[in-house]
Amino acid sequence: MKNRILSTFMASALSIGLCQAQVAEDFKPSSLNQPGQEYPMVNSQGYARFKIVAPAADSVRVSLGLGGKGGTKLAKAEDGTWMGTTDGPMDEGFHYYNVKIDGGKFNDPGTLNYYGSVRWESGIEIPAKDQDFYALKNVPHGHVQQVLFPSPSTGTSRRAFVYTPAGYEKGKDKYPVLYLQHGWGEDETAWMNQGRANLIMDNLIAEGKIKPFIIVNTYGMTNEVKFGKIREFKIEPFQTVLINELIPYIDANFRTLANKDNRAMAGLSMGGMETKMITLNNPDVFAYYGLLSGGVYAPTDITDKSKVKLVFLSCGSKERPDGVKKATEELKAAGFNAVSYVSEGTAHEFQTWRRSLYQLAPMLFKK
Amino acid sequence: MKNRILSTFMASALSIGLCQAQVAEDFKPSSLNQPGQEYPMVNSQGYARFKIVAPAADSVRVSLGLGGKGGTKLAKAEDGTWMGTTDGPMDEGFHYYNVKIDGGKFNDPGTLNYYGSVRWESGIEIPAKDQDFYALKNVPHGHVQQVLFPSPSTGTSRRAFVYTPAGYEKGKDKYPVLYLQHGWGEDETAWMNQGRANLIMDNLIAEGKIKPFIIVNTYGMTNEVKFGKIREFKIEPFQTVLINELIPYIDANFRTLANKDNRAMAGLSMGGMETKMITLNNPDVFAYYGLLSGGVYAPTDITDKSKVKLVFLSCGSKERPDGVKKATEELKAAGFNAVSYVSEGTAHEFQTWRRSLYQLAPMLFKK
Repeated sequence: MKNRILSTFMASALSIGLCQAQVAEDFKPSSLNQPGQEYPMVNSQGYARFKIVAPAADSVRVSLGLGGKGGTKLAKAEDGTWMGTTDGPMDEGFHYYNVKIDGGKFNDPGTLNYYGSVRWESGIEIPAKDQDFYALKNVPHGHVQQVLFPSPSTGTSRRAFVYTPAGYEKGKDKYPVLYLQHGWGEDETAWMNQGRANLIMDNLIAEGKIKPFIIVNTYGMTNEVKFGKIREFKIEPFQTVLINELIPYIDANFRTLANKDNRAMAGLSMGGMETKMITLNNPDVFAYYGLLSGGVYAPTDITDKSKVKLVFLSCGSKERPDGVKKATEELKAAGFNAVSYVSEGTAHEFQTWRRSLYQLAPMLFKK
Repeated sequence: MKNRILSTFMASALSIGLCQAQVAEDFKPSSLNQPGQEYPMVNSQGYARFKIVAPAADSVRVSLGLGGKGGTKLAKAEDGTWMGTTDGPMDEGFHYYNVKIDGGKFNDPGTLNYYGSVRWESGIEIPAKDQDFYALKNVPHGHVQQVLFPSPSTGTSRRAFVYTPAGYEKGKDKYPVLYLQHGWGEDETAWMNQGRANLIMDNLIAEGKIKPFIIVNTYGMTNEVKFGKIREFKIEPFQTVLINELIPYIDANFRTLANKDNRAMAGLSMGGMETKMITLNNPDVFAYYGLLSGGVYAPTDITDKSKVKLVFLSCGSKERPDGVKKATEELKAAGFNAVSYVSEGTAHEFQTWRRSLYQLAPMLFKK
């Protein structure tokens, strides 16, 4: 027993030693840094390195690092700055994080902020092998419009973002629409900012891989949802905003194909839960359903099979891909056009959802 | 002499005492706070109160406060939070700020961030007596579009924001365009975020006070400009982007009245300097010129008077209004349609520029 503990200890000491010895010193600024900022940096292996200026602080810790260890503790350098590197490579893609300074939670002044966990958080981008599909390229770009639509049910003007494909302004065509929802703690900025949905669409359209369509994002947390109390969530307030207020506004103000067969709904995480409830409650509104790390449909959930053109279920390989695959098989066996997608090497994070959108988009509005 | 010093000291001690005694305890969360955040707060007199959680910090200071005193030092409360109130009322309107924690510069996690001073800064809003003109109201709202336009001269896709008035999507009318520039250290997000230009326009249009027009904002610091080295600034790189790349893109993708008499250029601070150079270099491109806290034109600057429909010069009363007024009189005497505007009680800040846009908009595209 003692030997076993000892050898485990030594093995892990060894692996840490090896690991740190192998960190490639080819760090470059993260692509999400604020203009002119050198840190945070990432290397070719996916390690992240942080530098925080707070000369008189007693402790500085970054929330990122390998799972469950409380993040990365920074050490004070001679020049008074705090520096540290994650204890291993991060998953590819986008990550939220924050910085604990003397017990308070702040953002890294070096990088841009993204709304997640019900706060604007720091963001970092670990270059991915497949990053080309969401890169900003020299292709025609669609526009992303901020609209403020009247919402009598909530007594406010609510915000939505609308992606219109390149050439929309000059043309006369009508377009199908995908209503695409964010996750818990995020908002309507998530899909275009951290999700890069507009660039994914621009690139797919430029390569002729999809039929151009409009994407609409709005805020899905119309009633307060506390994390961990998601079972108490009631769909009615948001469903009213989406079905009775936003869709009519979009159909009145944009050149849409305003019918079920040209309307899709998808969402990530909590947005998947919302998608499931709203599509099932409104079988004549949407024909395409997508749940991205957001649960599954059982065949018995859907009353009228003939109304559904596609059920798309996805998640990261580090989530629970078996559940997604099994549900898809059951839907197929019951005669649905069901497709599953598993993002290799990613967890409950935006790289999974960027890839899911990239997979989903070519299947929409085909029939 | 001694008496005089003493009495000055006593008077100022007295005024501080009185001042603090008079702080109205009716603080409310600033309208720019992040969702669910109570602090920072503002009271009916314009005092701001801050609360920062950093239990183990040694010193916390907020950069806001009455001029030149290094901001507001927060004091540690019994619960480990840091609290403090500005030593006097702030000017009405929007202010950038940051938080110094143990010698490092961070943002207040309680509030939204705005790009200024070449970094995303914390923002706070002191309610203004005239805040109605930029309030979010139950009126038809225009859309704000993010466009990525090709820029061969800089080898990138560059970003612009385009405000189109309510009803643009449904109609067939063509619209005049105002090209409106931000200041040093800001970017193309400034006018819509901290400037609330879209809401100012929505409200003016809803009240029938202006002829609807399009507003375009893009990034004006195409070459690096260090603060204090603004005299070394060369206009050519940005002028090429604006005149040869952005304007043709806007005219090709939006329903514009694509001629001089339906095109205006205005800018704040450094954006005023850019406006002056570009309008003078391109007399056949713009007919309306606006410098907002951004210098003046002399009559001799302008070669062909007949091409200029309006020269608008403005600043805050706490800046140098005499220069603006004098220049306007000289322009008038030389036969120009020149108008000056001085924003009462404001300095080189966004409340001056919100008000300036509100004054300028009704004068545009009249002739």
